[in-house]
Amino acid sequence: MNEFQLIERFFSPLGQTDNELFVTGNGDDCTVLTLPAGASLCCSIDTMVEGVHFLKGAPADRLAYRSLAGAMSDLAAMGASPAFFTLALTLPEVNEAWLARFAAGLKKLVDAYNFPLLGGDTTKGPLCISIQVHGLLYAAPLLRSGAQAGDIIAVSGTLGDAGAALSLLEKFNMKSSGLSQEEQYLLERYYSPSPRIALGQALLSCASSCIDISDGLLAEAAHIAKASSVALSLDSDKLPVSSELLFLKGKERARELALSAGDDYELLFTLAPEKWEVLVAGVPELRLSQIGVVQAGEGVFLDGLRAQNLLKGYQHFE
Amino acid sequence: MNEFQLIERFFSPLGQTDNELFVTGNGDDCTVLTLPAGASLCCSIDTMVEGVHFLKGAPADRLAYRSLAGAMSDLAAMGASPAFFTLALTLPEVNEAWLARFAAGLKKLVDAYNFPLLGGDTTKGPLCISIQVHGLLYAAPLLRSGAQAGDIIAVSGTLGDAGAALSLLEKFNMKSSGLSQEEQYLLERYYSPSPRIALGQALLSCASSCIDISDGLLAEAAHIAKASSVALSLDSDKLPVSSELLFLKGKERARELALSAGDDYELLFTLAPEKWEVLVAGVPELRLSQIGVVQAGEGVFLDGLRAQNLLKGYQHFE
Repeated sequence: MNEFQLIERFFSPLGQTDNELFVTGNGDDCTVLTLPAGASLCCSIDTMVEGVHFLKGAPADRLAYRSLAGAMSDLAAMGASPAFFTLALTLPEVNEAWLARFAAGLKKLVDAYNFPLLGGDTTKGPLCISIQVHGLLYAAPLLRSGAQAGDIIAVSGTLGDAGAALSLLEKFNMKSSGLSQEEQYLLERYYSPSPRIALGQALLSCASSCIDISDGLLAEAAHIAKASSVALSLDSDKLPVSSELLFLKGKERARELALSAGDDYELLFTLAPEKWEVLVAGVPELRLSQIGVVQAGEGVFLDGLRAQNLLKGYQHFE
Repeated sequence: MNEFQLIERFFSPLGQTDNELFVTGNGDDCTVLTLPAGASLCCSIDTMVEGVHFLKGAPADRLAYRSLAGAMSDLAAMGASPAFFTLALTLPEVNEAWLARFAAGLKKLVDAYNFPLLGGDTTKGPLCISIQVHGLLYAAPLLRSGAQAGDIIAVSGTLGDAGAALSLLEKFNMKSSGLSQEEQYLLERYYSPSPRIALGQALLSCASSCIDISDGLLAEAAHIAKASSVALSLDSDKLPVSSELLFLKGKERARELALSAGDDYELLFTLAPEKWEVLVAGVPELRLSQIGVVQAGEGVFLDGLRAQNLLKGYQHFE
């Protein structure tokens, strides 16, 4: 099976689209798209490397899902609707069973979001997955830079689950049975994060700033504080943690993970207090938690103390 | 130096833009762009892996230039004007001298084409460079599918130079002196291919099909033949080869390289005979060569013989 056959068999079927982009040239030297009138384009590229971002031997379908969902989270954080993605896949060998599982993992999100794969490159080398996601926006994007003193600080979902799953991954790679219900929940959260697309769109009309939590809450809060020239004051008692995380790790470790572990892909955002009720009513299926307030100043505070030393967000080269 | 400092120091300076895109959110979760009225967006992603697409120890500036120029060649092949690119860079370690050279290599093309770097991801792992290029088009794109029986087949520049350079690379990595003038010419052609952007734009108004030659002439000709449902009949005596290639390799080997070696990034295109003179007059600085004719039928012929067995285009997994 050569490169062209591989693409035709596994990836071309993911390129069907009936969305509002006018597409031509898919399979040519470039993909060519015409955007709908009034739309801006959002794009973001993310890489996952074997042995760094995931374990050798990780299930291909779950790996694909996590890579794409993680990349889509950047669209959610801007308030964009998913339009299409490209895939640069580096593989040590052509393993058809692996490729079929990988494509099946992508397909779940392709189908769920009408989010076609339009272009890519397949090369030989150490396993490495780069995905560029593209979204459409019909309003000003949600930036990191608009937080105002007096705003509420809030997050979606629960924090720390994916971080707690890291210690389970090896066990799960070896055999998928034998895990408790709580452990399985954490693994789901790690492998199948939910890009908060609907929330991002709801935030367009009310949030003053937004970021997705890929590198840990404290690290992301510091990005908003810096970009907005404000201080973010967080209350550790208000951090939303799942009952499964509490049960498995205890209150103290759960709190640490919620503050510093990455990979949850929830949204961290700020908004004026009077907009809270309308937002919550607009996304009734989603847990939203107020975790602090924006203040004049700079940096991040936790329970009134400067959080600089707690900043353990995942830094790729440290 | 952490990931954010690395980006700020080496890559943010490449993101200045005064081109016609309205850009916001660079450095945020996504880059947000508004396209000029009437413009379509072209995009293409390419990956280069150490040990597969380039030798370990290759000079970082030349590697960067070649990776970006090669990716830009896909824009040229569609007739697009370069707008911006993103970079997913996987590095085994933070080596500041290496990064400075790498950024300097990119900067040559950034400056020459007003082609900013707008977004990326930097991760740890085996050296791997994925670049997604984005271009603008105000006309229907040049596709592979429009070749008509009776059209001229033509190429830009000379073929086989980059392929002939492969055997010199190790020598050049060790020491850059000691190479003959002809060898230096071939290395330049390998490391600094010229994306044929101006030619691509000139072809918009006259060519019936176009592709860039990244995987070898015969392989690319087969793509046009298949997409256009025609036969491409090539004349081996008309293949443009450089005097340097002829001098170093002799006529027979030069012809083989011109037919099957990749990495030249010249354009292969077809057009109606009556349009030839106007095209040539429009790009006077560029060597253009007629190398055959399009005929009814299917596949690629060389000097009247079916070229199937000569198809040695670089297939990544064969």
